[in-house]
This record gives sequence, structure tokens and C-alpha cells, in this order.
Amino acid sequence: MKIGIFGTGVVGSTIGSALTRAGHEVRMGSRTRGNDKAVAWVGAAGANASEGTFADAAAFGEIVFNCTRGDAALAVAAQAGAENLAGKVLVDVSNPLDFSKGFPPTLTVLNDDSLGEQLQRALPGTHVVKALNTLTAALMVEPSRLSGPHDLLICGNDAGAKATVTSLLRESFGWKIVRDLGDITNARGTEAWLLLWTRLYGHLGTPDFNLHLETSGGAA
Amino acid sequence: MKIGIFGTGVVGSTIGSALTRAGHEVRMGSRTRGNDKAVAWVGAAGANASEGTFADAAAFGEIVFNCTRGDAALAVAAQAGAENLAGKVLVDVSNPLDFSKGFPPTLTVLNDDSLGEQLQRALPGTHVVKALNTLTAALMVEPSRLSGPHDLLICGNDAGAKATVTSLLRESFGWKIVRDLGDITNARGTEAWLLLWTRLYGHLGTPDFNLHLETSGGAA
Repeated sequence: MKIGIFGTGVVGSTIGSALTRAGHEVRMGSRTRGNDKAVAWVGAAGANASEGTFADAAAFGEIVFNCTRGDAALAVAAQAGAENLAGKVLVDVSNPLDFSKGFPPTLTVLNDDSLGEQLQRALPGTHVVKALNTLTAALMVEPSRLSGPHDLLICGNDAGAKATVTSLLRESFGWKIVRDLGDITNARGTEAWLLLWTRLYGHLGTPDFNLHLETSGGAA
Repeated sequence: MKIGIFGTGVVGSTIGSALTRAGHEVRMGSRTRGNDKAVAWVGAAGANASEGTFADAAAFGEIVFNCTRGDAALAVAAQAGAENLAGKVLVDVSNPLDFSKGFPPTLTVLNDDSLGEQLQRALPGTHVVKALNTLTAALMVEPSRLSGPHDLLICGNDAGAKATVTSLLRESFGWKIVRDLGDITNARGTEAWLLLWTRLYGHLGTPDFNLHLETSGGAA
């Protein structure tokens, strides 16, 4: 599959590399073609990797992953161009974190709105699926790092888009428990999780953790 | 141990009954002595149970559980009287939920403040411990309803108060994994969990669930 990635940071390069290893063709997008970090990533990720502008990555991908910082996500979507994303799936991995007052961060949007919804409103012709924003990058692409069962929470308005994303996450990354919470407004829940996640990170001393939902039916 | 309960709803009566079964003397407080629901609870809970005003319950308890609705918590603390709670532990089980726009609710305070902190500021001479607000009432007092491991998250400024509450929860309710996240500002995290909890409730179709933190060290 041809996949676009927005963002050259740890999340974008981790997801991009894992997708190339799984046999996908991946184009990493940034503000300008030839970005140092994107070029270095292409060199490391090999023949399935390429780089370009956000618009290049959007036009290239059948699916696109938004791995930018939360405060850049809407501007990046505009730079990528709604026409390049029309009819496609945009997996939004970003969180609206504000570190301006230090750690733990606050959220710039929450409670009765979410960044996932803002992206969906900005790109009405695109199927936004919120996913992977609930855990650290290494675990996004290799859930087997944790020995016990643990859960991925996704949401979005389009059932077909969520099925496509779920299949990709299962087949390319090995996810076993993928819970579809419903429409994109559920991003209000999975983004708010970051207010607890950051504190659990402080408590545990490692980002290498995830939640598992224990139910009265026993382990899922 | 002598324990006070603020609130006559499901949470207050569930916690109160479980504490009487564990051998504690429990006084349920409400706005007026002789409240119908409090009297009915005393009749059901037996010899270790009594009822009175919020001030009566506060004066009676060595530990007090706040089980009111979030939007009543500060007014109840004022009615109970700071002098009746001075030097004591107040376990805050409430959440600042706003159902005025339906389900799922929003929170009336979050992100850079929390109800737990508001209570602590209102009662500077009391040790507020945020606990049990992250799960449904039946599970608060009987965590063994779920077969697998799952975690209770608590926080508060006073280490001794947290140790007292942790011992009580282990011995009287059977909690095994109690995670102390740190000072009371961590209530911003455990209260924000409700924005996800309410959506997981919708997804699972039952409130009988809790989170377990899966870490790279395996099950806790």
C-alpha cells in the first residue's frame, strides 16, 4: 500500500519505518522538500521510503498518517491540500498538548471538542480516524513489547475507513485488541487520556505502558 | 474505625454498606437529619450504621468519604464545617460531571485544575485523598468482581493520609493494586479519565470495567 506520513519527528519516523519494514511504500512529508530529518529517514528506511512536501505525501498516500505536533496539525492539513486528501483516510496520531507551562502538559482543546474533530471539520471530504495517539511511539508499531494484553482505542465517522485502519494496524504492527469507540467525537475521550497518561508516565518512570480494559467477562 | 459518608446516593450507600460489613461504624450525612434515603440505608445496613447532617458525619468520622455529586461537593464541605474535618482524611470520590447536555457528560473543571484541588483549597486543614472516582460503585468496594488484575489510582498531598486510605481499601474492600500518583494535582488526570470512561462505558455496554496498566515488566 502507498502511505503518506506528515511529520519528521519520532512518531512519524517510527511509524514510517515500521510501515516500510511491513512492505509498504512510504512518503514522509514536511514543509519543504529535502528536509534534513526526512532525507536522513529515507536513507535509513531504504528503498520503500521517499520524502517530499506535505502535499507530496498527501497526493502519494492511499492512507495518510498525521504525526505532527498537535499545534501544527491544522496548518499542516491546509498545506497538504484538501484536494490531495479527498476521499482518503487520514489517521490522526497527534494530541493537542501544550507544554508551555512545563510537564505535565495541558490540552489546548478538550471536553466539548477535540483535535480529531477539528481536523475532520477542516477536511470534510476526508475520513479522519483517530488512532495510536494513546501510547508511546515504540508501542504504536510493536505492541508485543508488552507481554500481557492491552488495548488500542480508535474512533472516526466512517466504518469503512476504520476497518481499513484496523486491518493495517493488525497486519503491519500486530495489534490484537482494537476497540472502535464510535464516531470522531470520541476523540474527546482518547485525547483527554493524555491528561492521565502523562501522569502515569511520571508515576511509572517509563513511557512503555498501555491500558488494558479489564471487564467482568475476563481478559479480552 | 469510625467513618463518615457525605451523600445518600448509590456511591455513598454502596461504600457505607461495604464499610459496615467490614466492621466499621459508619455515619451517613445529608443536608438534614432524618433524610428518607439515609434512614432507609441505616435500616438496611444494621447496627454499625447511623445517619445525621453533613456536620454530624464529619464530626463522627476519623475518615470521611465525599460521595456527593461533583457540583455539590464544595457546598457540602462548607456545610460539614472545616472545624469538623480538621486534621482528618477526606476521601474525595466525586467527579465534576456536567450532564446538562446529555451523555456523555463534560467536566466543569479540568486541565489546569480539578475538583480534588478545589476541595483541598477549601479545606486546608484536611488531608484530601482523591480515590475511587475512576470506576463504578460496585467495583469500588468489590474489585474481585473482575477476574484479572486492575488498578486503583489515588493521589493527595499527605503521604500518611494516603497510606491510611490505601490500608483501608486493601483490608476492607480487597484492593490489590493501588497506585499513588503523587500530590493532589494528579486529580486533573484521574478526573479527566471520566471523559474516556464514559465513552468506554458506551462502547462496552456495562460500567463493570476498569483499567489495568500493562507495562514492559508484565502484569503488576
